[in-house]
Amino acid sequence: MNAPQFDIAVIGGGPGGYVAAIRAAQLGMKAVVIEREHLGGICLNWGCIPTKALLRAAELRHSIDEMKDFGITVGEVKIDLGAVVARSRKVAGRLSMGVKHLLKKNKVTVIEARAKLGPKSGDMRHIELDNGSQIAAKHVIVATGARARALPGIAADGTHILTYREAMVPGDLPESLIIIGSGAIGAEFASFYHDMGVKVTLVEAMDRILPVEDTEVSAFVQKTFEKRGISVMTGVKLSKVTTDKNGVSASFDGVDAPLQASRMILAVGITGNVEDLGLDGSAVKLDRGHIVTDGFGRTGEAGIYAIGDVTGPPWLAHKASHEGIICVEAIAGLADVHAIAPGAVPGCTYCRPQVASVGLTEAAALAAGHDVRVGRFPFAGNGKAIALGDDGGFVKTIFDRKTGELLGAHMVGPEVTELIQGYAVARTLEATEAELMATIFPHPTLSEAMHESVLDAYGRAIHF
Amino acid sequence: MNAPQFDIAVIGGGPGGYVAAIRAAQLGMKAVVIEREHLGGICLNWGCIPTKALLRAAELRHSIDEMKDFGITVGEVKIDLGAVVARSRKVAGRLSMGVKHLLKKNKVTVIEARAKLGPKSGDMRHIELDNGSQIAAKHVIVATGARARALPGIAADGTHILTYREAMVPGDLPESLIIIGSGAIGAEFASFYHDMGVKVTLVEAMDRILPVEDTEVSAFVQKTFEKRGISVMTGVKLSKVTTDKNGVSASFDGVDAPLQASRMILAVGITGNVEDLGLDGSAVKLDRGHIVTDGFGRTGEAGIYAIGDVTGPPWLAHKASHEGIICVEAIAGLADVHAIAPGAVPGCTYCRPQVASVGLTEAAALAAGHDVRVGRFPFAGNGKAIALGDDGGFVKTIFDRKTGELLGAHMVGPEVTELIQGYAVARTLEATEAELMATIFPHPTLSEAMHESVLDAYGRAIHF
Repeated sequence: MNAPQFDIAVIGGGPGGYVAAIRAAQLGMKAVVIEREHLGGICLNWGCIPTKALLRAAELRHSIDEMKDFGITVGEVKIDLGAVVARSRKVAGRLSMGVKHLLKKNKVTVIEARAKLGPKSGDMRHIELDNGSQIAAKHVIVATGARARALPGIAADGTHILTYREAMVPGDLPESLIIIGSGAIGAEFASFYHDMGVKVTLVEAMDRILPVEDTEVSAFVQKTFEKRGISVMTGVKLSKVTTDKNGVSASFDGVDAPLQASRMILAVGITGNVEDLGLDGSAVKLDRGHIVTDGFGRTGEAGIYAIGDVTGPPWLAHKASHEGIICVEAIAGLADVHAIAPGAVPGCTYCRPQVASVGLTEAAALAAGHDVRVGRFPFAGNGKAIALGDDGGFVKTIFDRKTGELLGAHMVGPEVTELIQGYAVARTLEATEAELMATIFPHPTLSEAMHESVLDAYGRAIHF
Repeated sequence: MNAPQFDIAVIGGGPGGYVAAIRAAQLGMKAVVIEREHLGGICLNWGCIPTKALLRAAELRHSIDEMKDFGITVGEVKIDLGAVVARSRKVAGRLSMGVKHLLKKNKVTVIEARAKLGPKSGDMRHIELDNGSQIAAKHVIVATGARARALPGIAADGTHILTYREAMVPGDLPESLIIIGSGAIGAEFASFYHDMGVKVTLVEAMDRILPVEDTEVSAFVQKTFEKRGISVMTGVKLSKVTTDKNGVSASFDGVDAPLQASRMILAVGITGNVEDLGLDGSAVKLDRGHIVTDGFGRTGEAGIYAIGDVTGPPWLAHKASHEGIICVEAIAGLADVHAIAPGAVPGCTYCRPQVASVGLTEAAALAAGHDVRVGRFPFAGNGKAIALGDDGGFVKTIFDRKTGELLGAHMVGPEVTELIQGYAVARTLEATEAELMATIFPHPTLSEAMHESVLDAYGRAIHF
């Protein structure tokens, strides 16, 4: 056996894996990333990044409709869908090249292959690669991510029934579109395709869209979507889909007539990539398609770790990156490595209106036994939002009545995905209402609504 | 004497004054605001708010040039300047009405008049109004703001030589424009008028534009302005301006040929409105046109307070509002009222690229004797910025090397005026690098650059 040896091998080059490998290299470890397809993973190649490029195009398209109010008129508007998609791919390509460059700069070895865990000899774990070669590493981090979940009996065919992957690179625009699932992915596609002129129906099995968000946020987004002309159906479960050359016909439990559309996007969640990794027979535990870990990425098997989407929800790139860093720092034996605290992972949805949140929803705070104080502030009371002509939405903050601890913050409206970090910082520092009130938020900014929401929780809002 | 009596009289209804009055009412005090012209003050009527409406129009106009990259093309673009300005005025009007409504809702009396402090009888101070009537109040807060400073021998005529006030409501667009002074106001007008198609020269007497910002930020904005086609002259002092029907001719010390342009905007700072207030003979102290106060708005004269621009720099609305709240809470005898900590007031400039900062610049930190660690992260390494097609600029953070305290943060680039609040929250909570590194910033957002800048200060940046 003279397989190349590493301190750390990371299987999967997404935002969990490549960040873990870079951090390992910074800490002086010899690291390798094994990636089967694209450096940067789904996030960078088929998720967060290319969708943001698409949504920016949609936002620019929408801004044309706003311009008249600002005294700007334009002649005929033409959208070259091919160019919209091509730009999105180009951005993904640039970033994937960037990751390659970063790994090289940090002296991380990159292997393009599929990897499978092999036996251990001494403290080294063998990894078999599908190019026929082998490597060995003291520590192996599984960062294989996840893939679109299928519904029983309903298969994506890539033509009429799409996953996010095909939905991101449409060759043409369908006349109409049914989107099954109204989490972040479904809501973002609904927003994008509607702005591009497609008749969209967004369908959710739960009783409200964006079901992980605070109920007030869900209600506001649904109202805004409907005002824009997006049809929303909640509390209905897809039972059957048939396709023919004209498109899809979808039947729902308890709904009489099937719904017809040119295409359908399935966005019903994701499932971990745990297969063919050689985990069988190991002490690595699985739970509903995900690898079970402690707060430091450790699995049941010594020397095997897992981070990111393969370990379960929330399926978010920044959670994966942060887990990667924690996992590597713990392996390196650094002092003061802390597992991710509950409610420390913010979530963002980039539909119009944008949604962002961190910590507990009001319902979750009550369910956890907190006596709460709740503050709300509408962007309609915010000068910058009014000046921008984009004053829909609100900020909602939830405090523990006894301790004043900020339990959660929920935002919907302009640029909230960029605003939420202030509350994330506050939560890391265990801020109470007193410090947030004492903070001077600059004027005129949307962020003043964050301040006012806190003030409102204590009956002290100024502009409401 | 049976003049109406109040607990608190606020002279001036700007963002310092009206906020102070509302807070006083919330605390159970009988409050009056005396405003000579517009509720909301300069900020709301002739400053922050209407300029943001203008700049949004400029941004929308600029976005049309970006659309081609996104696959969107439009026919002929027409700008109706009258409509641009009218919308800006409408926004200011809506907000001024909003302030009126808020004051009414909080049961604050509003008097439209000019006020002058009169004698004291007992613990009540008389205030004479220019409508012939009088009121009396136990506490008087002077919140009269400031006005454009004039240059010796160079008077704004409102036609060729403008202050911010005329510059905000142009009847037509000049062919060319000289802007004297490159602080926030000068830089914002340069950005706006250039986007509207005007040939702009921005002139600064100091050695760099935006002289209160970190030198690296000044340099970046200058480079970007010049790339856009704005001429920038630094280190030159205006010596003489002549006007004729064609426009202005400006001479500068040490520069041979005078500069010609259709119009000129003077943006050389502001001076406190301290005249005709009846302060003469009182113990209220003035310093270079501003009222001297302690950290709680107290002047040398018991019962007379001052807040906001009339008390000197930084001339910022949010500083005024915060001072108003502190002043009133101290009057009310609330526990735990704290004066504004040094470096707690963020500053924002809404030109393209946007600028935002809080705390010490690197030079100021070194001058104050700190041994520093400095982090930098360019938006060119940020996925969201690349997806938006707006990846110029950077985030710079400054830490005390010994304690890890965040001393200052300086940002230039997309949406930084909305991002800075995260660092403001961090400074209020006396965050060190450890807490900022432990915070999970959501992906993909511009705010990740804030995280990376902190990591870079400690040699741990991932994406650079």
